[in-house]
Amino acid sequence: MSKPSLARGTRDFGPEQMVRRNFIFDTIRRSFQRYGFLPLETPAFENLSVLMGKYGEEGDQLLFKILNSGDFKSKTNEQDWLGPYKPLTQKISEKGLRYDLTVPFARYVVMNRGTLVMPFKRYQIQPVWRADRPQRGRYREFYQCDADVVGTDSLLCEAEIVGLLHAILPELGIQDFTVKINNRKVLTGIATMIGASGQEGPLCVAIDKLDKIGKEKVKEELLQKGFHQDSLTLLEPIFELAHSQNPFADLKSWLSSSEVAMQGIAELEEVWKLVNIAGIPNPKIQFDVTLARGLSYYTGAIFEVKANGVQIGSISGGGRYDNLTGTFGVPGISGVGISLGVDRIYDVMEELGLFPDSAQATTQLMLTNFDRQAFEYGVGLLAKLRNAGINTEIYPDSVKLKKQLDYADRKQIPYVVLIGSEEIQSGLLTLKHMQTGDQQKLDIAGIIAALAH
Amino acid sequence: MSKPSLARGTRDFGPEQMVRRNFIFDTIRRSFQRYGFLPLETPAFENLSVLMGKYGEEGDQLLFKILNSGDFKSKTNEQDWLGPYKPLTQKISEKGLRYDLTVPFARYVVMNRGTLVMPFKRYQIQPVWRADRPQRGRYREFYQCDADVVGTDSLLCEAEIVGLLHAILPELGIQDFTVKINNRKVLTGIATMIGASGQEGPLCVAIDKLDKIGKEKVKEELLQKGFHQDSLTLLEPIFELAHSQNPFADLKSWLSSSEVAMQGIAELEEVWKLVNIAGIPNPKIQFDVTLARGLSYYTGAIFEVKANGVQIGSISGGGRYDNLTGTFGVPGISGVGISLGVDRIYDVMEELGLFPDSAQATTQLMLTNFDRQAFEYGVGLLAKLRNAGINTEIYPDSVKLKKQLDYADRKQIPYVVLIGSEEIQSGLLTLKHMQTGDQQKLDIAGIIAALAH
Repeated sequence: MSKPSLARGTRDFGPEQMVRRNFIFDTIRRSFQRYGFLPLETPAFENLSVLMGKYGEEGDQLLFKILNSGDFKSKTNEQDWLGPYKPLTQKISEKGLRYDLTVPFARYVVMNRGTLVMPFKRYQIQPVWRADRPQRGRYREFYQCDADVVGTDSLLCEAEIVGLLHAILPELGIQDFTVKINNRKVLTGIATMIGASGQEGPLCVAIDKLDKIGKEKVKEELLQKGFHQDSLTLLEPIFELAHSQNPFADLKSWLSSSEVAMQGIAELEEVWKLVNIAGIPNPKIQFDVTLARGLSYYTGAIFEVKANGVQIGSISGGGRYDNLTGTFGVPGISGVGISLGVDRIYDVMEELGLFPDSAQATTQLMLTNFDRQAFEYGVGLLAKLRNAGINTEIYPDSVKLKKQLDYADRKQIPYVVLIGSEEIQSGLLTLKHMQTGDQQKLDIAGIIAALAH
Repeated sequence: MSKPSLARGTRDFGPEQMVRRNFIFDTIRRSFQRYGFLPLETPAFENLSVLMGKYGEEGDQLLFKILNSGDFKSKTNEQDWLGPYKPLTQKISEKGLRYDLTVPFARYVVMNRGTLVMPFKRYQIQPVWRADRPQRGRYREFYQCDADVVGTDSLLCEAEIVGLLHAILPELGIQDFTVKINNRKVLTGIATMIGASGQEGPLCVAIDKLDKIGKEKVKEELLQKGFHQDSLTLLEPIFELAHSQNPFADLKSWLSSSEVAMQGIAELEEVWKLVNIAGIPNPKIQFDVTLARGLSYYTGAIFEVKANGVQIGSISGGGRYDNLTGTFGVPGISGVGISLGVDRIYDVMEELGLFPDSAQATTQLMLTNFDRQAFEYGVGLLAKLRNAGINTEIYPDSVKLKKQLDYADRKQIPYVVLIGSEEIQSGLLTLKHMQTGDQQKLDIAGIIAALAH
């Protein structure tokens, strides 16, 4: 009889956290739908052939793999057991847990491309699993909330993502945030410009760290990665852009010879223009030429969102990718999407005290259970209260009133109704507000009027 | 580049199914909360020490087991690989996917019993996974919706479950259903009565099949299981109960010498009484002495719900268990719960045509994109429409109007707004109802008034 425990890196969400998390999920879902995104859910596990090779070698290692059911050994031989574990894995495991929502979405698009209405706008709110080493703020199971549009290269989609963020975050109470935006094409142009064509991958990775390690360390890293000193000299203007009053104009004069860079800048300007036309008041967008998000699959816009005033990493990120389904043999489907991190958003809201009190409890009213007569009387009232939309319960056992009130208090139920023989005779019940202690005598219609909204 | 496929026994839920499923989930969740149940979520995977041995030997086999991360071979030797696969499993796998919501709930209660407010009423809506052979209507991933109360033996909880079902099912449109109720104590008393004390397990399993295989086959099975012919003679009254006008009275005279059976009958009568007091009009409850649900852990009430008029198995089941947390070393916590099967409910609703039209789409309005001028004009309207609570999108690309309308049609978006240069000048836009083809000229306030609710 072992003491039970949680699997490492996983969490239970008890009622109090659930109510708060559902507040976040509901807010996000409502905005996603307001913008015309439709819901999708995919299975928790996928064939490993779908998942492997999509997240780099490290990602392959971080996939949770499911042991084949039944006699998993039957397809192996002694040779396999004596060898290294990686090839053996493929013989005893065919399925793995979802690592993100993007690859399953790509699989869905490919499998349903004959019937899907394009452009396809979907949202997906589901947990993902990664066999990472657990640490503060990093879990092996966590939710992602993704919204993507595929099948169009309209830059309206980028502007709509900006709009979505400006709808969701203030509704959660997060007023002070910054949406950083960059464009991969600009980075590609810069790489060509400095004579390091095709090297924007490592260039991005290094430049991405500018905020954290500073200009000199970035240059050091680039030298180590094989960039020439000449390239670094040519790169110099990039470090000035952060302080520019008119970065797009500066970029255009610096990169005028690069067609792809000019295309990227034109895209950025169009996004800025559409955000403006959409009428977002004081849009919190900021061009950041150093933003790369380390990920190589973005081909156009790149987004990252930070809540200001708190020491918590980015709460959202995304971008445009032109080859979502290419790895499944279907090239040419362009898409753009955003992913919101619920755990980070939860932490931001907690740190800033943004959870409304009403997001603490879902039960509004408890009837006390004084004796059998009052109990039966109370049971007879439940349907009326609930039909009026009031979340109601009656204490199920006849125990001391103090214990019943203590229960309501600890469950943060805001109101209780006290029922005694006098109350039953008169039909006037005592409605007590738990926090203030205020009591009023009301009939059932009065109680409903007092609580319903 | 392989053609991607779904893992066997799993499903994607596309937008149309998702909207319908969310309608079911939302309805269930609302009623759970109306009755004072609080939300809980537990991780998708648990330590195998938590899961193994809880579902019988067959259940252990049906658990999806997760291969340990990294070099899972490092804790094994050649001997392990030469032996049978079951002991080897334990050396290379420490975690398994959730098989139901009850055992993780029990683990949660045990781990948090110091701080939990008892009685604890929780609901939990999450997927579970079973390595069953997939077949029609049976999947390897499916959702369970459970509501349980632990920490009280009040029979009000049983009556509240009946109330919950009478709140949820009609709200889904399922009006014609039957809640079958039995009590394990009655079955225990019968076993003793017929001289087969302690044999109510196999007795239940056989009697459970009465509906399917008939009286004679049930007797045959009991004989095969070692029941005496004398026992079967003594058992005879049970087959008459189905037609009894007053089954509780008949049971009481038959089982008067069994204290435990009389206790069970008293419990049933109290549940009937409380359902009556609760004011459920024409409660669709039916005592069924043959109901056993094959599960050995019920100790009091047993529930099963069937939708009438369709050939689909039970849509809900549950009961009282007195030893939920006993396997984790914490005895004496009584609980009672109900589980709703969303897949079965979905099938019932589809067969009976119960899904409302409005449960088909979430986007209400699409603006067309005639040319750049109309596009910019439309983008400027989006915020107003969305702020009024209307789920709106604008077609992102400038393509032929026919293609745009086709998109709205296939997405089942009920309304489109047509914007041309004339409309922009006058401010009167054409609102078109897609299904009827009706068109009206309205300003933006008029469109909002026509669509908002």
